[in-house]
Amino acid sequence: MLELTILGCHSATPIENKHTSSQLLEAEGNLFLIDCGEGTQMQLRKANAKFARIQHIFISHLHGDHFYGLIGLISTFRLLGRAKPLHIYGPRGIKEIITIQLKMAKSWTDYPLYFHELSSLKSETIYEDEVVSVSTLPLDHRVYTNGFLFTIKSINRKINIEAIKGIDLEPHHYKQLQQGLSIELSDGTIRENKKLTFDPKPIKKYAYCSDTAYNKKLIPMIMGADLLYHEATFLEKHADLAKKTKHSTALQAAKIAKAANVKKLVLGHFSNRYPNKEDFVCEASQAFDSIFLSEDLKTFLI
Amino acid sequence: MLELTILGCHSATPIENKHTSSQLLEAEGNLFLIDCGEGTQMQLRKANAKFARIQHIFISHLHGDHFYGLIGLISTFRLLGRAKPLHIYGPRGIKEIITIQLKMAKSWTDYPLYFHELSSLKSETIYEDEVVSVSTLPLDHRVYTNGFLFTIKSINRKINIEAIKGIDLEPHHYKQLQQGLSIELSDGTIRENKKLTFDPKPIKKYAYCSDTAYNKKLIPMIMGADLLYHEATFLEKHADLAKKTKHSTALQAAKIAKAANVKKLVLGHFSNRYPNKEDFVCEASQAFDSIFLSEDLKTFLI
Repeated sequence: MLELTILGCHSATPIENKHTSSQLLEAEGNLFLIDCGEGTQMQLRKANAKFARIQHIFISHLHGDHFYGLIGLISTFRLLGRAKPLHIYGPRGIKEIITIQLKMAKSWTDYPLYFHELSSLKSETIYEDEVVSVSTLPLDHRVYTNGFLFTIKSINRKINIEAIKGIDLEPHHYKQLQQGLSIELSDGTIRENKKLTFDPKPIKKYAYCSDTAYNKKLIPMIMGADLLYHEATFLEKHADLAKKTKHSTALQAAKIAKAANVKKLVLGHFSNRYPNKEDFVCEASQAFDSIFLSEDLKTFLI
Repeated sequence: MLELTILGCHSATPIENKHTSSQLLEAEGNLFLIDCGEGTQMQLRKANAKFARIQHIFISHLHGDHFYGLIGLISTFRLLGRAKPLHIYGPRGIKEIITIQLKMAKSWTDYPLYFHELSSLKSETIYEDEVVSVSTLPLDHRVYTNGFLFTIKSINRKINIEAIKGIDLEPHHYKQLQQGLSIELSDGTIRENKKLTFDPKPIKKYAYCSDTAYNKKLIPMIMGADLLYHEATFLEKHADLAKKTKHSTALQAAKIAKAANVKKLVLGHFSNRYPNKEDFVCEASQAFDSIFLSEDLKTFLI
């Protein structure tokens, strides 16, 4: 299962019922947190998230509306008696910011806390396990910023029907082959897994792109994604502001979605100047069909 | 007018409807913010506070539940186009924590931002104007911590009835004397203000004491305060935990209030382990009469 819960989708400053950027991605039982604006830990509670299951947090950039809630969450994990390691991925500098605060408070975590500081301007794979890989999507913003591409791999290898023809397989061999194991036939012969199966293919892709100016370089990197979250801080009537602040308009987000042939586009990171969020859908619909609006605590099945 | 609004009064971690420490004190039109836990800016909005009127923020100590909302508030002031200076009073180290985050975000404030770092172990006056003076109350906690004593002075000097006997005062002279001005009599004689008036006496005192172990040294410093906010993280049944973590029980807070002969005691900084807050009142009533419970967004007229 791949499920995205929007914890906050507003830009600039958190106000009542309008939280800044944070998302929770559940991938086959693992929870990944993406960005962590102020108040994220309260939003996680509202979403009934299991805190202990979050082991990896990805921070796009060091503007406050994307990470001011991180230090509080790290502290809360300690108070909750966390033992599992926590991994933080974010721009160079994030370790110093967090560490100095733990030091001043004399509140070092009891659990292992690892920082993976990012500085590359090219896409790189920063996390991988059997189910998920995460790579960076370099974005064009006022400070060093990455989006993140989550690729959920098929857990099972696919059996090569042609290759197993004529082999006398027992029922349990099928499961072993799917799991990547080599098998032992009843006559004692060992048959190598890779000769009888295909590599698992990526089956789902989720791309998170916030914050960024209109950026065509993204297109090949997110091609065919099942879901694209793209920031739409502004409407076209404020395209000058978008350009100046290195943000995108709803129309620009839709053009990226169209060019990358993604299946669904979710708009977010809205400026609080717009009372009617439907205007974002109207504008984006000029360039793309399958458009959804972020809402705090809304969930999308991918 | 002296009015206290509790923005958050819970210890440890913020959860829905339970915010960590922050208070807004309105003194003759000036707004002072005391501590600033995560989400304080959202609580300020709920309290309809005028952000621009906050010019002085006092941070007791560098545990997260007392200051993790500060960086967000400083950033929001910038986004709101603030021009007025902002003064932050807090333990040594607070400047570095805030500065590094502004630097990484390339988000220096446009408004003047001053840090007044505290390190004295003795009470000292850290702010004073015509109406208010603020002095530190050294507390006994796991890290360097100060409470704050707000003394609201009488704005007007008191005329010395004996001293003005036999002086031919015009009606406008009384106002001038109250304002601290020397006066010119109709015959051209100048009469010095200080010889005709008494110094304005302190008329209201508010003492904020969080976080601290039971600490008798506080008593003379807060003697006769109109309102004492004293932390009561625990009940007596957890007195061992209070001692270990350098916090107070409700009974200990009441004993301090009684010994200092304060007029009212407001309890706060509650541990989330206690579902029924009335238990704090019951316990504290053994030692003191005039007891009130903090609640988020509750206001006390002093």
